[in-house]
Amino acid sequence: MAFVFENNFLGIKSGSTFFSLQDYCKDKEEAFYIYDLDGIENRFNFFKNGFSGSKNKVRIHYAMKANSHPLILKKLKSLGAHVDVVSLGEIKLAMKNDFLAEDIVFSGVGKSKKELTEALKLGVYQINVESTAELTRIGEIAKQLGVKAQVGVRFNPDVNPETHPYITTGFRENKFGMDFSEISNLDKIKQQFSEHIVLKGMSIHIGSQIRDNSSFIDALEKTLKHFKLIKNNPNWDLQSLDIGGGLGINYDNPDVETDLPLITEYTAKLTEVLNTIEADIICEPGRVIVGRFGCLLSKVEYIKQNEYKNFAILNTGMHHIMRPCLYKAHHNILAVDNNERKNILYDVVGPICESSDVLGFKRI
Amino acid sequence: MAFVFENNFLGIKSGSTFFSLQDYCKDKEEAFYIYDLDGIENRFNFFKNGFSGSKNKVRIHYAMKANSHPLILKKLKSLGAHVDVVSLGEIKLAMKNDFLAEDIVFSGVGKSKKELTEALKLGVYQINVESTAELTRIGEIAKQLGVKAQVGVRFNPDVNPETHPYITTGFRENKFGMDFSEISNLDKIKQQFSEHIVLKGMSIHIGSQIRDNSSFIDALEKTLKHFKLIKNNPNWDLQSLDIGGGLGINYDNPDVETDLPLITEYTAKLTEVLNTIEADIICEPGRVIVGRFGCLLSKVEYIKQNEYKNFAILNTGMHHIMRPCLYKAHHNILAVDNNERKNILYDVVGPICESSDVLGFKRI
Repeated sequence: MAFVFENNFLGIKSGSTFFSLQDYCKDKEEAFYIYDLDGIENRFNFFKNGFSGSKNKVRIHYAMKANSHPLILKKLKSLGAHVDVVSLGEIKLAMKNDFLAEDIVFSGVGKSKKELTEALKLGVYQINVESTAELTRIGEIAKQLGVKAQVGVRFNPDVNPETHPYITTGFRENKFGMDFSEISNLDKIKQQFSEHIVLKGMSIHIGSQIRDNSSFIDALEKTLKHFKLIKNNPNWDLQSLDIGGGLGINYDNPDVETDLPLITEYTAKLTEVLNTIEADIICEPGRVIVGRFGCLLSKVEYIKQNEYKNFAILNTGMHHIMRPCLYKAHHNILAVDNNERKNILYDVVGPICESSDVLGFKRI
Repeated sequence: MAFVFENNFLGIKSGSTFFSLQDYCKDKEEAFYIYDLDGIENRFNFFKNGFSGSKNKVRIHYAMKANSHPLILKKLKSLGAHVDVVSLGEIKLAMKNDFLAEDIVFSGVGKSKKELTEALKLGVYQINVESTAELTRIGEIAKQLGVKAQVGVRFNPDVNPETHPYITTGFRENKFGMDFSEISNLDKIKQQFSEHIVLKGMSIHIGSQIRDNSSFIDALEKTLKHFKLIKNNPNWDLQSLDIGGGLGINYDNPDVETDLPLITEYTAKLTEVLNTIEADIICEPGRVIVGRFGCLLSKVEYIKQNEYKNFAILNTGMHHIMRPCLYKAHHNILAVDNNERKNILYDVVGPICESSDVLGFKRI
C-alpha cells in the first residue's frame, strides 16, 4: 500500500485524491483491515507480465492462504488469476467468489477423504499429491466415483532457503512433498489405478517469504533433471510443472516499489530456465501479490508508562495478526498523524493475556 | 483424564465401566475433544478443599480462558465456582452458561469503552484495572452511568517465575499490572471520581503453568506489605485480595494424581500466608482445574516415510492446539490401541502448510 503524508496525516493516494487514514478510523471502536485493490491489480499485472518472455503457457494460481477476502478473490479472478487452495473450505470460498473448478489447484499434506471426494466430484484442475499414501487414496476414490483424477506430484527438492524455519518447506526434513526416489512407487500406484489417475504434473514449493532467487533456481534445476526423465516415463502424461510460490516482500521498507526489482529478477530468471522445457507452467504467488496492499488499523486503548517501559495497548493483537508472535516477524507500525511524540518509544502490545501478544518492541 | 489400557485399548475408566477411545473415534471424520466432567469435578473440589484451613472467605473464580466449553462452565458453576473473564465475549458466554454478573471478575489489559460500559451496566462483581488510564476511563463511564464501579487494582509484584517467557506476566517488563509506586496516582483518580469508584481489592497474577510454589509465595509476600499499608489508606475500601492463578500441571506424567502434591502444597502455603491478613480471597485457577481432563482425538490421515524421517499426518494441528507451535510445549501423544508399532518414531504433524505445524517430534 502506498502510504503518503499530506498535511501531517498518513493516507493513501489514488490519482490526485488523498484518503486520510484518520478519517477511516473515526468512530470505529474495533480494529479493522483496509485493502488497496488498485495496488493489488497493479502488482498482479506486474508479476504476470514478468513472464511475458515465456515460450510456455504460464498459469498464475493465486495462493489464497495469503488473503482470502472475497473482494480480493473477485478482483484477482477478474484479472485472469486462477487459484491455489489447501482445504475444502478454501475450495468453497474460492468458488463462492467467482473461481471455477477448472481454476483450482488443490495442495496440502493432509487432505481428508471427504475433501478429496468433493474435489474429484467438482473436477478441480489439478490435485497436488504429497505422499504415496495420498495417491493411493485418490486412486481409490476416483475409481469409486468413476472419474479420472488429474494429479500433480509434489516433490521435495531438498533445498533449505534462508527464511524462518517455520516457513521453509522444501528441505527433506519437512513434511512436504516427496523425494524423487519415490517415483517408482508412484508408478506402481498409477498402474494399479490406471484408468483413474492421470499423472499430469510435477510440483514443488520450497517455502515462504524467500527473498533470495538463487534458492528458487537451485530447486528448479534439481527438479528439471527429473522432469526430463519423467517425460519419457510411460506411466506419466507429463504436461505441467508447478513451480509453487514463496517469493517474499520487503517488510523493512514502506516503499512498495522496492519489491519490484526482485520480482523482475525472479520472473526473468525462472522464465529463462523454464524455457528449456516444454510444459504448462503453474506459478503460485500469494504474499508478493497482496502482502503490501493491506493494513490493519487499530486504536491505542491505553498508554501505560513506568520507569522501566512504555506500553501502547491496542485493540488488536495476536488474534488478528499472528506473525509477530509466531515468527517474531517485523511489521511497520505507523501513527495515522505526524504529530510530535517526544521521541518516546513504546512496546506496542495487544489485549490478550499472554506476554507473547506484542506487535513490536520499541516503536513509533 | 485417567487413561487406562484394557484388552489392549486405551480408554477412560469411570467406576467399573471402561470407555474405549477407539469406540469414540469410529466414523468420526474430523478431530474432536472429549472431556471428563467427573475428573473436573473431583479436581475442583480437591483444589477448593485445599483452602479449608483459611480464616478468610475464599472465592474460586475459574479462569475461563483455560476452557470455555459450555458444559464445563455449567459444571463448575454447579460446584460453586465463580468466574474470571478477560473480554465482553467471555462475560456473555459465562452468563449464557449459568454464571451471574455477581460471579464475574473482569481482568485484561486492553478493555475497551464498550466492554467496560457493558460490565458496569451488568454490575459485575469486580473489575481488575491494569493501568491508571483504565481507572480514569472506568471513573468516567461509571459517572456517566451513575453507578459505583467495584474495582480491584492489579499490581505487578516484579517476580519472574520459571516458565515460558510468553506466559510470564508478573515481571516488571511485562505489560500487565502496575508498579506499587502508582498508588498515589490511583488515589488522585479515586478522589476525582469519589462517588463512582470503590477501590475494594488488590490483585496479582504472575504467570501461567508455574510449578514452583516459591514464586507464588514471593509475590504474595511482596504484595502483603502493600496490602497492610493500603488498608489504612482513606481512598481505599480494601476488602479483598485477588491472588490470581497460574498453578501448572505435570504434562510429562500421564498420571493425573501426580498434580496433587503440588496443589496441596500451594493451597496450604498460601493459606498460611493469607491467614495473616483479613480479606476476602479471590483465587483464579484455570489449567490446574481442567487441563488434565480433556484430550484431543485425531485420526492419522497419512503415514509418510522416507530415509530421513517418518511422518504421521493428522487431521488436527496448530489450528486446534496451538501450544506446541507457539511455546514448543510438550503434550503426550498416545495411540488408542496398544498394538505393536515396530518401535518406529514419527514426527506427528498437522495438515497446515507451515513447518511449525508439528504436535510432537519422534513420538509413539
